[in-house]
Amino acid sequence: MANLSVRDGKRNARSPPTENINPDIAEERENAKFDPIELTYVIDGGKEKTERRRFLESEALNDPVFDDPADIAFLTDEQRHTNSVRKSLHMVRRLQEMEITNHMESHWFRVAVHRSEEIALSLHASMFQHTVMHQMTEEQQAYWLRATKDYTLLGTYAQTELGHGTFLRGLETTATYDPTTQEFEIHSPTLTSMKWWPGNLGKTATHAIVAAQLYTKGSRMGVHMFMVPLRSLETHLPHPGVELGDIGPKLGYNNIDNGFLRFNHYRIPIENMCMRHSKVMPDGTYVPPPHKKISYGSMLPIRSGIVGNTGWYLSKGSTIATRYSVVRRQSELIPGTKEAKILDYQSQQLKIFPNLATAFAFIFTGREMMKHYFESLAEMDEGNYSSLPELHATSAGLKAFTSSVMASGLEELRTSCGGHGYSKASGFPELYGTAAPASTYEGENTVMFLQTARYLMKVARQAGSKDKLVGCAAYLQADLPPRCLAKRQIDFLRQDILVDAYKHRAKSVVMLAARRLGEELKKGHSQPIAWNNCHMYLVKAAMAHCHLYCVESFFDGVNTSETSQPALDALMTLCQFYAIFGISQNKGDLLQDGYMNGEQLNMLERQLIDLLAVIRPIAVTLVDAFDVPDKMLSSVLGRYDGNVYENLYEWAKSSPLNKKEVPDAYKYIGPFLRENIANSKL
Amino acid sequence: MANLSVRDGKRNARSPPTENINPDIAEERENAKFDPIELTYVIDGGKEKTERRRFLESEALNDPVFDDPADIAFLTDEQRHTNSVRKSLHMVRRLQEMEITNHMESHWFRVAVHRSEEIALSLHASMFQHTVMHQMTEEQQAYWLRATKDYTLLGTYAQTELGHGTFLRGLETTATYDPTTQEFEIHSPTLTSMKWWPGNLGKTATHAIVAAQLYTKGSRMGVHMFMVPLRSLETHLPHPGVELGDIGPKLGYNNIDNGFLRFNHYRIPIENMCMRHSKVMPDGTYVPPPHKKISYGSMLPIRSGIVGNTGWYLSKGSTIATRYSVVRRQSELIPGTKEAKILDYQSQQLKIFPNLATAFAFIFTGREMMKHYFESLAEMDEGNYSSLPELHATSAGLKAFTSSVMASGLEELRTSCGGHGYSKASGFPELYGTAAPASTYEGENTVMFLQTARYLMKVARQAGSKDKLVGCAAYLQADLPPRCLAKRQIDFLRQDILVDAYKHRAKSVVMLAARRLGEELKKGHSQPIAWNNCHMYLVKAAMAHCHLYCVESFFDGVNTSETSQPALDALMTLCQFYAIFGISQNKGDLLQDGYMNGEQLNMLERQLIDLLAVIRPIAVTLVDAFDVPDKMLSSVLGRYDGNVYENLYEWAKSSPLNKKEVPDAYKYIGPFLRENIANSKL
Repeated sequence: MANLSVRDGKRNARSPPTENINPDIAEERENAKFDPIELTYVIDGGKEKTERRRFLESEALNDPVFDDPADIAFLTDEQRHTNSVRKSLHMVRRLQEMEITNHMESHWFRVAVHRSEEIALSLHASMFQHTVMHQMTEEQQAYWLRATKDYTLLGTYAQTELGHGTFLRGLETTATYDPTTQEFEIHSPTLTSMKWWPGNLGKTATHAIVAAQLYTKGSRMGVHMFMVPLRSLETHLPHPGVELGDIGPKLGYNNIDNGFLRFNHYRIPIENMCMRHSKVMPDGTYVPPPHKKISYGSMLPIRSGIVGNTGWYLSKGSTIATRYSVVRRQSELIPGTKEAKILDYQSQQLKIFPNLATAFAFIFTGREMMKHYFESLAEMDEGNYSSLPELHATSAGLKAFTSSVMASGLEELRTSCGGHGYSKASGFPELYGTAAPASTYEGENTVMFLQTARYLMKVARQAGSKDKLVGCAAYLQADLPPRCLAKRQIDFLRQDILVDAYKHRAKSVVMLAARRLGEELKKGHSQPIAWNNCHMYLVKAAMAHCHLYCVESFFDGVNTSETSQPALDALMTLCQFYAIFGISQNKGDLLQDGYMNGEQLNMLERQLIDLLAVIRPIAVTLVDAFDVPDKMLSSVLGRYDGNVYENLYEWAKSSPLNKKEVPDAYKYIGPFLRENIANSKL
Repeated sequence: MANLSVRDGKRNARSPPTENINPDIAEERENAKFDPIELTYVIDGGKEKTERRRFLESEALNDPVFDDPADIAFLTDEQRHTNSVRKSLHMVRRLQEMEITNHMESHWFRVAVHRSEEIALSLHASMFQHTVMHQMTEEQQAYWLRATKDYTLLGTYAQTELGHGTFLRGLETTATYDPTTQEFEIHSPTLTSMKWWPGNLGKTATHAIVAAQLYTKGSRMGVHMFMVPLRSLETHLPHPGVELGDIGPKLGYNNIDNGFLRFNHYRIPIENMCMRHSKVMPDGTYVPPPHKKISYGSMLPIRSGIVGNTGWYLSKGSTIATRYSVVRRQSELIPGTKEAKILDYQSQQLKIFPNLATAFAFIFTGREMMKHYFESLAEMDEGNYSSLPELHATSAGLKAFTSSVMASGLEELRTSCGGHGYSKASGFPELYGTAAPASTYEGENTVMFLQTARYLMKVARQAGSKDKLVGCAAYLQADLPPRCLAKRQIDFLRQDILVDAYKHRAKSVVMLAARRLGEELKKGHSQPIAWNNCHMYLVKAAMAHCHLYCVESFFDGVNTSETSQPALDALMTLCQFYAIFGISQNKGDLLQDGYMNGEQLNMLERQLIDLLAVIRPIAVTLVDAFDVPDKMLSSVLGRYDGNVYENLYEWAKSSPLNKKEVPDAYKYIGPFLRENIANSKL
């Protein structure tokens, strides 16, 4: 456990340290008129939740079994894989012992166990178990759900193929029914049909839910799910007919054995098809599902989780950059004085504060999505399905919007830390590697935006009719002011003025996309060609729609938060800043159709700058409110105590290359120098 | 040499393969009316240069000593360091044998030796040797320049400290002269004064040029340069008083031992101070430089090299993404037909083509910077120094502008490759890691933009006077049309209309920044506070200025290129596309002051889309023109032959985790499963 102290501050892992605090960061914590814990309660959804989260984190952070053998940056991928599996098996035991079944509580514990790394074995308890529960019959579940919950197997979920991703119908793996033996023959007919990417598939999982094209009686029946044993429970060797392996190193997730899987006419019994909705009878007769299942909204909790996670990743990045920026000093802001804290530079504030505000925005957005989802479920109970499809479509875009904003935000935060941000000691390379794949998993982002756009185009057609629109695209029919009403700079702090600008923008670009689509159709293009010719407008429409949703979610979150006035004021300032910054970044859309004029934009930009000065003194308190313990932040730069430099040095000294004073490379350097010295005319 | 075939296509390393080409990519090469080699000649600056470059690359790529023991993604950092040192020492030998001294030729060879990795030992022949040549007396050089050229030592350049980067005056390392022994005592008085980051300092270099604060006769004389022996040439052990080590793993550069260096009252003889400009006499008397040396412009060749490199990195990224996008098929563009090449989707074109065009723009910009530099040198010979300071200031911003645009461009290209872009097999993680630090090295980007802005503010004040402005900021005084003259969509293909828009934008935001600065001063703020309060406007002004420079460089480059008409047409299309795309991304600035109106923007956006269709069929030919051999591209996705999937599979099979069928982690998995099976009620 050599090097943990460097990132966790030689202290109880959960409670912040109280002594040996760098005075440069200590003085920052005197500025705010509120305690960061007040906002922590807001973020967690109440004091009880914060306390429960902290308790579970303590259980994970103080358990020595969850300590890593060395800083993960110093381990090989193989060591990281072994370590992650070790930790996650103990994690399963601890969750069982603590009898934790609540999803959020389990999530808190898992994250605290894995800290800066991706959670290992996560598909077993999520997609694998979910499919067993929702796509198997009760009879099937009697065995498989028990086995899943008892962990008598390790499961994963194998859908994506080497040549096929988001487009489900393109999957090539086949499951051909043989009535003579009452078996399915699972086969990978082509190279591109190999399963590729599933987490822990390569070396860890013993079973997988496999998505395959069902063939029976010579007909193709589309993609169905199958429970497929992969490895012997005795020896862990792949079963004959199953080829398994790791897909190799990646930008991140290198503690996870994302795997490949190739079937060679591999046979499983008929009972292993998931038969809750459709069936294959012993004679091979296919029984389709009794009714098209309402899958609307099932993705919504998953996507709101992803959106919330983007907020979590940004909150970690903002914490690191903000704390480092009050410890790092660079250049003389005023000649002849001490070098200034880099957070005192306006340009540094402009790199960090928008991302800090966005972290809050995305946390509130994830929560708002869940709230809307539950409201829609309640409406459905009363037979009203009107808002769910739209919410479903919006959630696709929100996943794409937040994950792409997050990715560029994290890189901006990393570079705001200068050279040291580039070191793995900063935590940014691992954080970015873990966060970045959100732009492709659960649906590639552009495909997701286009799904949102498809819905928006449908609503845009309805907007002209007499039917009243409801839900989060109702703005397409709303009476908005024809021009932005702001007359003075201070007007840009008003929620109505800010939200109206976003509504107007969204409506304007949605309607522009609809017009362009109409024009393409009029030119004689088919619908798919016209659609493709308008991708630029359509993606932009989806983005503007999602941006509005985030702004409204942030305002709604602030308006319904119960906390002290100073804490609430701080949150409202961040919310206003988020909205103003977004307008300044997208001002072209609002100027292009004359909704805003140049003078208004000038006022807005002045207001933007004025808010920087409001946020600056409370910035450290704001990131403290994210309440990320040092062990989970895993950043020498972001340490709560601000003791950055001594710990960069300690961290470096433990680096693998420093184990030998004279490196392996000396076997080349020595002869090279000796030869040159011998030959030189010196 | 296990796994090289996967990335290099089992073929002569330099010549493209002619057989076993994936038909999906082969058909793309039939579309263009020109041969890619024509544009290669343009990029290299002529046929002779291309041939020479190809010859040198062949020498590097076909020499088995330069092969890696395995794909670098499968090696540990220590193995990579050893391998890189091994290769770079052989590289030195080969350069000596071939008697290559020309900077560009040497660069071509070094890049081909190191391929996707950063060049090892690069500081020896650049900053180290440069300082010896330009800051040592002839007498000193007699020894040290000879030693440097004969490689009887391995040198590096140690300036940056743990707590001090771009702000040179803040350096803390001291060099205190002791007249009794005629020695300097080099010392690291604080933790933050440790040298930190220099390449190959940790484990490889035997000597360093060290930047330190000179003290003599009790007075501080500012930062000076010293030749400091670090390691024994006999044993490679650090000398007593010298502490050396590697700073640990980073986002990239992990073949390089970026190092730390701490001095404990370490003594070097008086002769080791670089004394060309200022001196310390044996009695300790300090002799200042006879005249303030004109350092203007010395950074320009270095910065134009960085700018050219950003074009090179983007050309590699564009090559990978473009080739993969004609091999990867996804979804049915037209229902019921074969899945479409993803490059056929407009949204995919919008991710790739702007970066492809930007690669050309930055290549031309780097070259234009060099051209302006030589023009200015010629003017200086005639006593005219007018353009050099401005070119110097512009070059700071150009380095920042191109490196930040490149970084986000590479990530956009990576995500355009979907999930497979995230695999190290794509080449993107290594490419990004190698390219990304350009935003901090040779001056942190925001500091660079502010240097440019400082010059622009000075010129803005002059613009109102009668003095005629010259050089690349002369537009601040130019008579530009008060409104954009475009009346039809096709007008946006006109160079004058496009360049005028950039000139207007730059002038407008520069003047806005100057006004804001004036307002802040009028409020009573001191100059430094006013300056800080205007960072947002100032950075933006510098960016707009640099963007204009790139657009003009691209047009100038195309207009002076000699090649066939079809090749020239293709280049002009890319240039127009680059300019149009940049306006659409920054339309807010042009709308805000009324230079353009909404209808003009609508026309411009239509023209943007129309150009996509012109570029689409020739896209593969355009990236082929970058002429990057597979071994240097180091990407399974970007292979010239388009055989992506089989090689992703081959690559994965060689991955370290696949060396054992049953992984190390089984020591935890086995007991876990057995215990669960024993306890389960199944």
